[in-house]
Amino acid sequence: MDFKAALSEKAHLINQALDAYLPPELAPPVVIHQAMRYSVLSGGKRLRPALVLGAAEAVGGRVEAVLPAACGIELIHCYSLVHDDLPAMDDDDLRRGRPTTHKVFGEAIAILAGDALLTLGFELLARAGLETDVSPVDALKVVREVAVAAGTEGMVGGQVLDIKSPEAGAPAELVKEIHRRKTAALFVASVRTGAILARASEEALAALTRFGMSFGLAFQITDDILDVVGEEARMGKRAGSDARQKKLTYPAIFGLAAARERARAAAMEAVAAVEGFGSAAAFLRGAAEFILTRDY
Amino acid sequence: MDFKAALSEKAHLINQALDAYLPPELAPPVVIHQAMRYSVLSGGKRLRPALVLGAAEAVGGRVEAVLPAACGIELIHCYSLVHDDLPAMDDDDLRRGRPTTHKVFGEAIAILAGDALLTLGFELLARAGLETDVSPVDALKVVREVAVAAGTEGMVGGQVLDIKSPEAGAPAELVKEIHRRKTAALFVASVRTGAILARASEEALAALTRFGMSFGLAFQITDDILDVVGEEARMGKRAGSDARQKKLTYPAIFGLAAARERARAAAMEAVAAVEGFGSAAAFLRGAAEFILTRDY
Repeated sequence: MDFKAALSEKAHLINQALDAYLPPELAPPVVIHQAMRYSVLSGGKRLRPALVLGAAEAVGGRVEAVLPAACGIELIHCYSLVHDDLPAMDDDDLRRGRPTTHKVFGEAIAILAGDALLTLGFELLARAGLETDVSPVDALKVVREVAVAAGTEGMVGGQVLDIKSPEAGAPAELVKEIHRRKTAALFVASVRTGAILARASEEALAALTRFGMSFGLAFQITDDILDVVGEEARMGKRAGSDARQKKLTYPAIFGLAAARERARAAAMEAVAAVEGFGSAAAFLRGAAEFILTRDY
Repeated sequence: MDFKAALSEKAHLINQALDAYLPPELAPPVVIHQAMRYSVLSGGKRLRPALVLGAAEAVGGRVEAVLPAACGIELIHCYSLVHDDLPAMDDDDLRRGRPTTHKVFGEAIAILAGDALLTLGFELLARAGLETDVSPVDALKVVREVAVAAGTEGMVGGQVLDIKSPEAGAPAELVKEIHRRKTAALFVASVRTGAILARASEEALAALTRFGMSFGLAFQITDDILDVVGEEARMGKRAGSDARQKKLTYPAIFGLAAARERARAAAMEAVAAVEGFGSAAAFLRGAAEFILTRDY
C-alpha cells in the first residue's frame, strides 16, 4: 500500500468534514469562529482521525459511521495545541508554519477558541451516536474513553508533567510517563474509538490498544528527535525549542542513537500488534512504518 | 416549601458526589488535582445542578439517576469561572471569598484545571448513560445539548461578546444576547438535562425550557444589580468590577429601577412556566422566587 496516498485520501475526507462541522466564519461572534477555523484548518496531517478510520476498517467497519467521531478527536487534538502554545504554557510563536492562534487573535480569544474546540469535539462524539447507525451505548463509551484520555490521566496530566519537568526528578521514568499521557493516550483512544464504533471483538480491541500505545510512543520519540535534528522550514515550527525550554525528551536523556533505536522498536511492536488483521490493517501498518521515515 | 433548606439539602448531596467524582488530591500530578478541587469545592450555591435535580423531580424522575449529569454540569460551570477569571480575560483576584485559581496555582495550571474540569464534566455526562438506568440515547442528547450550551452558541460566545463589549454597538440588544448566551444557555441546559433524563414529555420539556430561559435572565440581571449595590464581603468577590471593566450590564444600560423591574418580571415568567406541574415543581418555583430576594 502507498501509505502517503492513503493518508492523503483520508485527510481529504476529514478536512471536508471538519470544514462542514466547524461554525461558519461569518456567524457571530465572528472572531471566535475565525480563530477556531484558523486553528484547525491549517494543514495538519490528520493522523489521529485517520487512525480512527483505519481502525474501523481493520475490523470491517464503515468509514462514514466513524467520521463524525474522528473529527471530534481531531478537534480535541487541535484544542490541546492551541492551549499548549499559549504564553503561560510553552509560549510558541509558530505552529504548522504559521503564527500560533494567540499571536493572531490575542490570548483571550485563543483560550476561548481552545475551549470551544474541546466542547465541539465532545458534541461531535455525541452526534456520532445520534446521527449515524452507531450504537448509542458504544458512542457513550467513546465519549467516556476520549474524556479520560484528554483529562488528567491523559493529555492534561501529561502537559502538567511536561511544563513542570525541569523541577522534577527521575527523568527516564518521567519522560515515559509524559509521552504516555500527553501523546499515546489520544492515539490509543483514536484507534479504540474506530474499533468500538465498528463493534470490534474484545480480542481485536485489545490488539488495537497495543497498536495505539506502541504507535504513540514511536510517534512522540520521533517528534523529540525531529526537534533536535529537523529542518525548521519542513516542520513548520522552531527547531530546538525543547532544549531551550529544558524539556525532558528521549534524545536528551538517552542520546540520539538510543532514541532512534527505541522509536524503531516501538514502531515494530505496533506493526506486530495488528499482524492478525491481515490486509484490513494495511493502513495501520503503513502508519507505523511511516513514523520511521518521518521528516516533518 | 422552605426553598433555602431544600437547596441546602440538594447542595449537600451534590457536594458529596462532586467530592467523589473529582480525582483524589494526592493522585499525581498532585498540583492539577489540587487546583481542580480548589476551583470546585469552595462553597458555590450549586444552583445549576440543583435545577437538574429539581427539573427531574418536576416530571417524576429519580434524583439518583440524574446526579452524575448534574455534577457534570456543575464542573462545566466551574471551568467557565476559572477561565473567565484569568488575567487575559476578566483578570479577577477574588471568587467566592477566596483568591482565584490562577492567583493560587499560577496561570498555566489554572488554564489546565479549567480544561480538565470541562473534560471531566463531559465524562460524567457520558457516565450518566452508562452507570445509571438512564436511556443511552437520552444521555447522548444531553451531551450534545450541554456541548451546544457551552460552545460558541452559548457560554463561549457570550464570554467573547462580554470581553469585546466595550468596542461593540447597540448596547440594549447586545446585553440581552450576552446574558442569553453566557448565563441563560447553561440554566436552560440544566433543566432540560434533568427533564430529558427523566423522560419528560415534549410538552413538559417545552415548559421547562421556558422556565430555564426566564430563570437565567432573572438570575443574570440580579447578578448585575448585585455587582452595583452588593456588599463585597457577602458576595465573596469585588463589587463594582463590571463598571470598572466597562461591561455591558442591565443597570448600566436601563438604570437600576428598570433592571429590578425586568428581573422581577422574568422571575414571574419562570414561575408561570411551571404552574402546570403543581407541587412537583415547588423547588423550581422556589428557585425563581429566591432570585428576587438574593443578596449574594
